[in-house]
Amino acid sequence: KKYSVGILVVSDSCSSGVSTDKSGVNLREVINNNEHYLAENYAIVPDDIPSIKEKLIQWSDTVGLSLILTTGGTGFSPTDVTPEATREIIDKDASCLTQTILLESLKITKFATLSRAVSGIRKNTLILNLPGSKKGSQESLEIVLPVLKHALDLINDVKNDVKKDHI
Amino acid sequence: KKYSVGILVVSDSCSSGVSTDKSGVNLREVINNNEHYLAENYAIVPDDIPSIKEKLIQWSDTVGLSLILTTGGTGFSPTDVTPEATREIIDKDASCLTQTILLESLKITKFATLSRAVSGIRKNTLILNLPGSKKGSQESLEIVLPVLKHALDLINDVKNDVKKDHI
Amino acid sequence: KKYSVGILVVSDSCSSGVSTDKSGVNLREVINNNEHYLAENYAIVPDDIPSIKEKLIQWSDTVGLSLILTTGGTGFSPTDVTPEATREIIDKDASCLTQTILLESLKITKFATLSRAVSGIRKNTLILNLPGSKKGSQESLEIVLPVLKHALDLINDVKNDVKKDHI
Ligand code: NA
Repeated sequence: KKYSVGILVVSDSCSSGVSTDKSGVNLREVINNNEHYLAENYAIVPDDIPSIKEKLIQWSDTVGLSLILTTGGTGFSPTDVTPEATREIIDKDASCLTQTILLESLKITKFATLSRAVSGIRKNTLILNLPGSKKGSQESLEIVLPVLKHALDLINDVKNDVKKDHI
Repeated sequence: KKYSVGILVVSDSCSSGVSTDKSGVNLREVINNNEHYLAENYAIVPDDIPSIKEKLIQWSDTVGLSLILTTGGTGFSPTDVTPEATREIIDKDASCLTQTILLESLKITKFATLSRAVSGIRKNTLILNLPGSKKGSQESLEIVLPVLKHALDLINDVKNDVKKDHI
Repeated sequence: KKYSVGILVVSDSCSSGVSTDKSGVNLREVINNNEHYLAENYAIVPDDIPSIKEKLIQWSDTVGLSLILTTGGTGFSPTDVTPEATREIIDKDASCLTQTILLESLKITKFATLSRAVSGIRKNTLILNLPGSKKGSQESLEIVLPVLKHALDLINDVKNDVKKDHI
C-alpha cells in the first residue's frame, strides 16, 4: 500500500494564470518516482490564508490524504502566508522536519535562512511546507524523504523495523 | 547544594504494567552520577495530556523541583502528546535546548529528525522533553548536560563565573 | 535608500543607570558601518514585557522602522522576557533567523544553546532578538547580516537579483 499525497501550490500568479506552475508538477513527479507514495491530489490556491486552510482541511479531514506538500508562500513577502495558514490548522507541531531542512539547506545556500516553513500533523495527515522554487522545493523534500515513510508509519500505527532511539 | 530533578516516564505500556521502564531508571542513574543533581522524584504516567500536565504542574509548583526530564511521547504516533502537554503548561519557551539536541543527534542518526520534543520554563523549573528509548534519551540529555547547570543557575539567580556572551 | 534601524537595549541595570550600555551603542556602529542601513532610533527599556512591547509597537507602527534589533533579555533569568514580549506583538514568526544564529553560534560557544531569542515580522518591520553582551550580539548579528537586506527587500516588495530557491 502506498501513502497518498497531495501537492498544494500556493501562488497568486499561478492561481490567476499569469505564471505556469513548475514546482508542484515537479514535486508530483519526484513523489511518484518513489515506491512508497502516490500523488493523488494536486491543486493551486492563491496566497490567501482562508483558501490555503480550506484545501488543507479538505484534504486532511475529507479526502484523508497521508501527506500534504505545500510549495510557495514561505518567505518574507507580505503575501507569504503559507506558514501562518498551516499553523492555524495543525493539531501537533512537527517543525523538527523544517528545522532539519533549514540545517541541511544552509549547506547549499545561505538564503535557506529565509524560509519560514513549518510542518505539523492534522488528524492522520502530515503537512510539510516547502519553498516555492522548483529547485528549492525538490532539494528540501529530498532532505527529509529518507525519514518521511517512517513518520507516516508512526502516524498510521504501521509496524516497521526501524530502530527509533531518538524519537 | 544540588539541583533537584524529577524523571517523568510517559508511556501507556509502562503505566499499565505491560512493559518495564528502562529509560527513566537509566536517566535517574545518569543524573545521580553527576555532582550537580539529585533525582528526587520519579513517576510513570500514561500518554495522556491531562495526566502529563498534572504531574508537571505538581512537580513545578508544589514540589518545586529545579529540573524535570520527561522521556517518551515525543514522536509521530497518535498517542505521542508529551510536547503538546508540555507546551500548554510552560511560561517560557526554551526550545533552543531541543534544537541543539536535534542538531547534534542528527550526527548520530537521521531519525533524530522525528523528535518533536520541546523545552521550557515554568516558574523556577526547567522542563526538558527527551525521547522514549534508553539510548536516545541518555544521548540527548548528554548533549545539553554541559550547559544545563548554567541554565539552572540563571533560573535560580545563582551567581557563577561562566561568560555568557551568547545568551 | 537605506533601511531604517532601531536599536532597543533591554536591561534593568542600563535602564536605571546602574550600568552603561555597551552592546546597543556597538550594534549602532556595526549597523551604520554597513552601506544598506541607518540606525535612526536608539532606546533603553527595563526587562518588563509592557515596556518592551510599547517600544516595539511604536517603532513598527508609528515610526515605521524597517528593522528593530533588540539586545538583552533572551536568557534563562527570571527577568529575561524579551522573547515573550516579542512573540506577543509579531504578526509572523521568522525564527528561522534565530535558528540559524543558534546553529552558527554553537561553533563559537556551547552556551549559545541558552539563547531563547526569537524573530518575527510586524507589519513591514523585521524584529530580531540578539543576546545581551557586546560580543554575542555583534557576532549574532553578523551571522544573519548577509541575508538581512534580502529579507527586508522581500518585506518591502523591493525587486533584487538574488536567486531565492530555498525561500
Ligand atoms: Na517541536
